[in-house]
Amino acid sequence: MAKKQKVQRPKAQTPKGFRDYFGAEVAQRTEMLRVIAGVYHRYGFEALESAAVETVEALGKFLPDVDRPNEGVFAWQEEDDKGDGDWLALRYDLTAPLARVFAQHRNDLPTPYRRFAMGPVWRNEKPGPGRFRQFYQCDADTVGSGSVAADAEICAMLADTLEAVGIERGDYVIRMNNRKILNGVLEVMGLSDEGQKANVLRTIDKFDKVGESGVRELLGKGRLDASGAYIDGVGLSDEQAEPVIAFLTSKADDIAGTLANLSAAIGDSAIGAEGVAELQTMADLLAAGGYGADRIAVDPSVVRGLGYYTGPVFEAELTFEIKDEKGRPRSFGSVAGGGRYDDLVKRFTGQEVPATGVSIGVDRLLAALHMKGRLDAKTTGPVVVTVMDRDRMADYQGIVSDLRNAGIRAEVYLGNPKNFGNQLKYADQRDSPIAIIQGGDELAAETLQIKDLILGAKIAETATHEEWKDRPSQFEIPRADLVARIKQLLDEQSQ
Amino acid sequence: MAKKQKVQRPKAQTPKGFRDYFGAEVAQRTEMLRVIAGVYHRYGFEALESAAVETVEALGKFLPDVDRPNEGVFAWQEEDDKGDGDWLALRYDLTAPLARVFAQHRNDLPTPYRRFAMGPVWRNEKPGPGRFRQFYQCDADTVGSGSVAADAEICAMLADTLEAVGIERGDYVIRMNNRKILNGVLEVMGLSDEGQKANVLRTIDKFDKVGESGVRELLGKGRLDASGAYIDGVGLSDEQAEPVIAFLTSKADDIAGTLANLSAAIGDSAIGAEGVAELQTMADLLAAGGYGADRIAVDPSVVRGLGYYTGPVFEAELTFEIKDEKGRPRSFGSVAGGGRYDDLVKRFTGQEVPATGVSIGVDRLLAALHMKGRLDAKTTGPVVVTVMDRDRMADYQGIVSDLRNAGIRAEVYLGNPKNFGNQLKYADQRDSPIAIIQGGDELAAETLQIKDLILGAKIAETATHEEWKDRPSQFEIPRADLVARIKQLLDEQSQ
Repeated sequence: MAKKQKVQRPKAQTPKGFRDYFGAEVAQRTEMLRVIAGVYHRYGFEALESAAVETVEALGKFLPDVDRPNEGVFAWQEEDDKGDGDWLALRYDLTAPLARVFAQHRNDLPTPYRRFAMGPVWRNEKPGPGRFRQFYQCDADTVGSGSVAADAEICAMLADTLEAVGIERGDYVIRMNNRKILNGVLEVMGLSDEGQKANVLRTIDKFDKVGESGVRELLGKGRLDASGAYIDGVGLSDEQAEPVIAFLTSKADDIAGTLANLSAAIGDSAIGAEGVAELQTMADLLAAGGYGADRIAVDPSVVRGLGYYTGPVFEAELTFEIKDEKGRPRSFGSVAGGGRYDDLVKRFTGQEVPATGVSIGVDRLLAALHMKGRLDAKTTGPVVVTVMDRDRMADYQGIVSDLRNAGIRAEVYLGNPKNFGNQLKYADQRDSPIAIIQGGDELAAETLQIKDLILGAKIAETATHEEWKDRPSQFEIPRADLVARIKQLLDEQSQ
Repeated sequence: MAKKQKVQRPKAQTPKGFRDYFGAEVAQRTEMLRVIAGVYHRYGFEALESAAVETVEALGKFLPDVDRPNEGVFAWQEEDDKGDGDWLALRYDLTAPLARVFAQHRNDLPTPYRRFAMGPVWRNEKPGPGRFRQFYQCDADTVGSGSVAADAEICAMLADTLEAVGIERGDYVIRMNNRKILNGVLEVMGLSDEGQKANVLRTIDKFDKVGESGVRELLGKGRLDASGAYIDGVGLSDEQAEPVIAFLTSKADDIAGTLANLSAAIGDSAIGAEGVAELQTMADLLAAGGYGADRIAVDPSVVRGLGYYTGPVFEAELTFEIKDEKGRPRSFGSVAGGGRYDDLVKRFTGQEVPATGVSIGVDRLLAALHMKGRLDAKTTGPVVVTVMDRDRMADYQGIVSDLRNAGIRAEVYLGNPKNFGNQLKYADQRDSPIAIIQGGDELAAETLQIKDLILGAKIAETATHEEWKDRPSQFEIPRADLVARIKQLLDEQSQ
């Protein structure tokens, strides 16, 4: 007989940057998406689900001009006879597919088109701790309306959504800004070089972190950062930098004051004035709808990284304090953001189609709810019916059926029943609240043994039975009383 | 000025074999998945969501032994410095990822591990009419139990699931079989050639279509099919083919009769006898749970294509009649199937782990519900508040807010309000039940005009107002009565 080759076994591992989600994690996300979809739907938005796969051409940015165009996306080439099949890729957000969908189906869709979409997106990036290459987004966009009433509506909906999923009023604020004001600021600065403009925008984005003096340094000669490294500045004179500083420090006690300061910062720039007027209209519309200063703020430091925003931009920030990795308090930060982008559909059709929308980071929002104690990390498992006699499986299934038919989550132990201790260990691992036992004696007496596993765990913890003596952790009930008694016990346990 | 180059615009198109899902399609699938998850959860199954992406190695079958191993899957190679990064691929089902997950996390998971998973899977196949390369699966599996009680439980759960989503008892049947019986049949036939065995299995799979005489021909010399093409036979003698025929025709009036016939068909094969005994146990357990002959059948023609099944196999068939593309009546057919596979986890760990599970074809099940008239193709759109005066947007938003806060789906028109006809066309395209109008006169009188668009459409259809004269399609109400009157009208419309 030939010598056996050593078997090469595949590694049981998720690819780098991907992960599995179990039980409560999945259920809680599903429930959150259901609640968000409910709010979006009430606002008149319609669900859209496009495929995970798009042509690289439709996604844009990532054109097949190199051998393998997978910069930032997961891409591959379709097989065809001539070797020049289409390049396909996994979507990297839900906005690029929306632009493609609207361009493709525009004759059949109502205009304006309000749509929401929820699902995973993929990024071909170096994975790191807590950075995953597949994550959920949850978007709502209005395509085909140039009115800032559309932007205001989305801000109002965002506030309603946060409250619907369990973030209390006072624990969040919707911060609004307008890109046109920024453009006005750049205009009065007399900047024309695009690179320099981009550097100024990046610097503005750092205002929250480095403050006014830091921004002054970064706009000028540069700055020594906390790690001791020297960061090159944009190279502006103090005078040139002044409009940016005026802009960034324009936040006043109320929205009216902030808007007045912003008006001053943009001088006589027409585009800047337009931005201020839009912000004013949004604030007015929101105030009329009851969304006041406790929920809505104008905040000049909101820039939003993406280059495609053209008007209003907004962000939902959770304001409650958490501890950072070094134990220092900081606010939880942004969980959603968006704004107006008027050029995305034009790529396909040549026609300008105004659009605005928001994207909620579902995973961050779930993390926030966990920190606020609004979501349990552990959920209660099923009632476990143990198997004392493997020939009587039909009886045990019958017990389980009665419970399930009454809406109670229940299961029979399906492993090897020989070792009874293993059955109780299994019930423990399942976070089961109750185990049910029926041996020969109970069968003859038409009864069941009920083990209260929650109480049992409490007794084991305190190592004394004293305080629980009126409530036994194991007791016998008539088989006929099964459903009523289990319901009663589950009620008691949840109190 | 240099001559402008013609702009190359990307095509706004889904890649071949992919499609977009809109509005009610998405909502109905989401709701179906929610209901199914509820049943699975009640049975003690836990949710699992793995990533869409797996290593090709973990998926198996599609090993990177060719330049681009994308036979059947969408695959690509990870970038790395040496050009030998991992091959990754989109999952083609939910079972291969489960095997990987169980092998990877087996020390943290309870055994037996009951899990359910729902989500899209991808197949790199030639797309055709109605054949898509991304579709939903919805699976439940029990890993780590060798007991046929686990298989019986899944059949019971499948019946409960079908009823929960709206398939009535009598409109479906769970058909069971066992691969060991088939193996017993092959054993008594004395077949040893693996290719010949596979051909016999394929022939059995055609029994529903070609009947007993067709199978006889296909097992023997061959057969002229309906299109006139000659199909080569397996080349068995009549005597050799006899056990297959006995097996396929063993269906009797009741399960006991069928099992007796199957016992005869497998002769003295030990593996065959084991299969018959397992089928008997499953039938007994199911009967004890109240799943009788109206829902459960033993059916020898159930083979299930996949080679990895090792014991019980089962299928959910919808038995009501539909018309095929030529108008001939046929039964709707299979919407779910599964069985026992004991070798999948072994690939990773070397240890044999028994497992059984089912996969529901969600899209087919949705199609069935549409055919039965259980799902509306069209859903009711939002109440549309029209814009008569664009400077009063805050008022219109206020109307919408009042409705939304009362749980009524509503939106304000966000397009250009200049042409009022366009606003009503929009409401029509949105399937809106009601339009609300407030011009200057109504504002002064603190009233609203209400247009009943459902009634309006009915009147337009019949071209007479006579039968609706007591119910005007447009009327005026006090602004203060908004919520109460809209609620009342929506109630009337839905009767």
